[in-house]
Amino acid sequence: MSDPQIDAHGRLRHLLTLDGLGRPRLTALLDRAAALREAARAGHLPALLAGRTVVNLFFEPSTRTRTSFELAARRLGALVVNFDIASSSTSKGETLEDTLATLEAMDSDAFVVRHKENGTPARLAAHARRAAVLNAGDGNRAHPTQGLLDLLTIRDHKGRIDGLTVTICGDVKHSRVARSDVHGLAALGAGDIRLCGPSALLPAATEFPGCAVGDDFDAAIAGADVVIMLRMQKERMETLPGLDEADYFARYGLDRARLARARPEAIVMHPGPMNRGIEIAPEVADGAQSVILAQVANGIFARMAVLAELLQH
Amino acid sequence: MSDPQIDAHGRLRHLLTLDGLGRPRLTALLDRAAALREAARAGHLPALLAGRTVVNLFFEPSTRTRTSFELAARRLGALVVNFDIASSSTSKGETLEDTLATLEAMDSDAFVVRHKENGTPARLAAHARRAAVLNAGDGNRAHPTQGLLDLLTIRDHKGRIDGLTVTICGDVKHSRVARSDVHGLAALGAGDIRLCGPSALLPAATEFPGCAVGDDFDAAIAGADVVIMLRMQKERMETLPGLDEADYFARYGLDRARLARARPEAIVMHPGPMNRGIEIAPEVADGAQSVILAQVANGIFARMAVLAELLQH
Amino acid sequence: MSDPQIDAHGRLRHLLTLDGLGRPRLTALLDRAAALREAARAGHLPALLAGRTVVNLFFEPSTRTRTSFELAARRLGALVVNFDIASSSTSKGETLEDTLATLEAMDSDAFVVRHKENGTPARLAAHARRAAVLNAGDGNRAHPTQGLLDLLTIRDHKGRIDGLTVTICGDVKHSRVARSDVHGLAALGAGDIRLCGPSALLPAATEFPGCAVGDDFDAAIAGADVVIMLRMQKERMETLPGLDEADYFARYGLDRARLARARPEAIVMHPGPMNRGIEIAPEVADGAQSVILAQVANGIFARMAVLAELLQH
Repeated sequence: MSDPQIDAHGRLRHLLTLDGLGRPRLTALLDRAAALREAARAGHLPALLAGRTVVNLFFEPSTRTRTSFELAARRLGALVVNFDIASSSTSKGETLEDTLATLEAMDSDAFVVRHKENGTPARLAAHARRAAVLNAGDGNRAHPTQGLLDLLTIRDHKGRIDGLTVTICGDVKHSRVARSDVHGLAALGAGDIRLCGPSALLPAATEFPGCAVGDDFDAAIAGADVVIMLRMQKERMETLPGLDEADYFARYGLDRARLARARPEAIVMHPGPMNRGIEIAPEVADGAQSVILAQVANGIFARMAVLAELLQH
Repeated sequence: MSDPQIDAHGRLRHLLTLDGLGRPRLTALLDRAAALREAARAGHLPALLAGRTVVNLFFEPSTRTRTSFELAARRLGALVVNFDIASSSTSKGETLEDTLATLEAMDSDAFVVRHKENGTPARLAAHARRAAVLNAGDGNRAHPTQGLLDLLTIRDHKGRIDGLTVTICGDVKHSRVARSDVHGLAALGAGDIRLCGPSALLPAATEFPGCAVGDDFDAAIAGADVVIMLRMQKERMETLPGLDEADYFARYGLDRARLARARPEAIVMHPGPMNRGIEIAPEVADGAQSVILAQVANGIFARMAVLAELLQH
Repeated sequence: MSDPQIDAHGRLRHLLTLDGLGRPRLTALLDRAAALREAARAGHLPALLAGRTVVNLFFEPSTRTRTSFELAARRLGALVVNFDIASSSTSKGETLEDTLATLEAMDSDAFVVRHKENGTPARLAAHARRAAVLNAGDGNRAHPTQGLLDLLTIRDHKGRIDGLTVTICGDVKHSRVARSDVHGLAALGAGDIRLCGPSALLPAATEFPGCAVGDDFDAAIAGADVVIMLRMQKERMETLPGLDEADYFARYGLDRARLARARPEAIVMHPGPMNRGIEIAPEVADGAQSVILAQVANGIFARMAVLAELLQH
């Protein structure tokens, strides 16, 4: 079965998931992101996307991710349109495929798609005639640019991914971030990936082959090189009987004492937005081991790299 | 009575309606749109609107038309502002004329206006001191850029407008698209314009002099060169006693069998967004005779032509 | 106590208030605004902000002010992002400080902030690591760019601020515009500043040292060089027992008869949006002494001057 992300010439045509991309392609994307970062810091960002049009199609609100994609595209010279779903034809009964075809007929080159249902970006990619589709998060399935920016941030601080011990803690079951991180980490040779959270929020072990899955954060964090904390949605917590915010923080929050169980030079990551005092203590979020703002900064460059890869023919 | 669209030097100052524009001016706009299309495809679109500011003033939501205008203006180098009516001064009790004067004082060069009331663009044009007003649809009165893109699409595929038989089917009574199409088609010499729909949705014949008006789609489509299907609003259908969606499709929907009554080389058009299965069958919408996506593509160039005409002094 | 707007080298780092800026700095900003206006009218606006990113953070809706900032920044070459608070992380429980830090990590250079609570822009400025914060209105405290554009407009028409008699009428108590105007007028030497309105809407006299405060508009306007009318919010009027719109207009509205009490060459100003017939008669708003649209036009250049001052390092 061929990968719908890859065209007949072996080029990346869409970015739907990191799953199956493989080490050479991932490494090339990370290298390109790092090179664009160097260019930006030297004030010589090339207008790689001049004349190109990128459409943001966000069916779930996410100002953070949308803004990151928008800045990435515009700083490379693209024209960006934020398509307002609420007042769009889709809300007037038009099919999503017709909305895509209409926008593509306006000479759009790329669609950045976020949707609460798994598979919507892939479904749109299957309909696109010429344009590229970039998955900006679908359901709990994938958030590939978040995965790339996390890989870049880890590589920046650790010099490698190979052999690292990475602990991901929180609502792993519903997390597209965790899935994309694991796909990327596994492809780049992370030695020990540990998924941790309340048992009701843990995925089936079969879904994450090769990962350790458990509900004991103290055990999971021991000796970790990288600790990735996931956002705990308040609505989700209400579905967990007998677990309030204080309990959650006590068992799954990252404070200084717990972080001391990881390697001394361990880095702390979070995809944002953070719930301070629920999944992470303020002193850790703002502490010397936190690379959370570096993640945000890298997000721009990871997205630039993907856009450049997909749109530079 | 002078035409408020034309200035003292005979130049187009606003675009409010195609009614009365006349063949030479319409032909010049279509030629300009076609020339801009050639330039775009050659990658040499000129920055005709560099330094100009275009304000989208949409009092009715329409992402499709707004996006088309926005892309047209920005690809010619204009700065485009989407004025958010919902959070604007107009909603704080400011008169529409004061909102326009305020935005014009900010050195805006053009206003793209959509409003549910007939005549709002003309009213704003009467108040504008220097800026141009482009009607992006007012009530059921006019949608002149839709008319232009339809004319361009027909001319592209038929080589001419003169002498063509054109059938327009649906809710003609409430359709600004139908009105602007008829104004343009008549001016460019279409031989036989037939308006068709449920009798409750037909306009007074006196409003469309020279057009055939009737409720029998099978008769109206016979021998047509061009079939323009209008969007049937679901809310409108509910006002038609005894006509449900299936009945509507049976009598006024365009399927293959009905299309076979038109000329073999007839083209099928729709202004979008489409209600598949209500006014048009999917196999016709996606079929070889459909030029619906060509309409969308031409929309950009028709709007570019109008903006260039109005703003290049 | 040092001024948080001024950096260690005595340069303006944020613009939070006009209070304390002093005559030389205010004059330099006005001169810069006037120079940018000359450049714009000659068609030679320099791309002073090329490569810079400006984020509009409007927690209160204000299309007018937001659009003015957006046009100012974009016409100087900046990339502008309108951050949609309603669908943002802030609404997902993220602290405002984290939202700012996140956007700053995306290499944003300036934040234009409007908030209903006094002090929010200052609070964000205290957190900014590198970016500049521009107050676009906080509570009833300050609206410094409105103050600057008002000063520029007065200087344009009167040739000076020194020694002028200025009457400000309306809901002074809740008006950030009045506060910023008074700060600027006092610093530039206005001779007689009179604040006037219904007694329930008058500020404590101690808050405006050196200003005359009273509820008799006829007395306050006598001999004025400049009359600044404030917007009367309809919701506020409902809190004034026994004062309906007609009463308000009779006592505090500016009509021709009342304007005749000011100097013959007096100018009339209003920050907009206007309630015609409540605080100002249409014939005065549109009359020969009105400079209301000049204020709007100057708003662009005042904001350009501030952005250039803060971002050109």
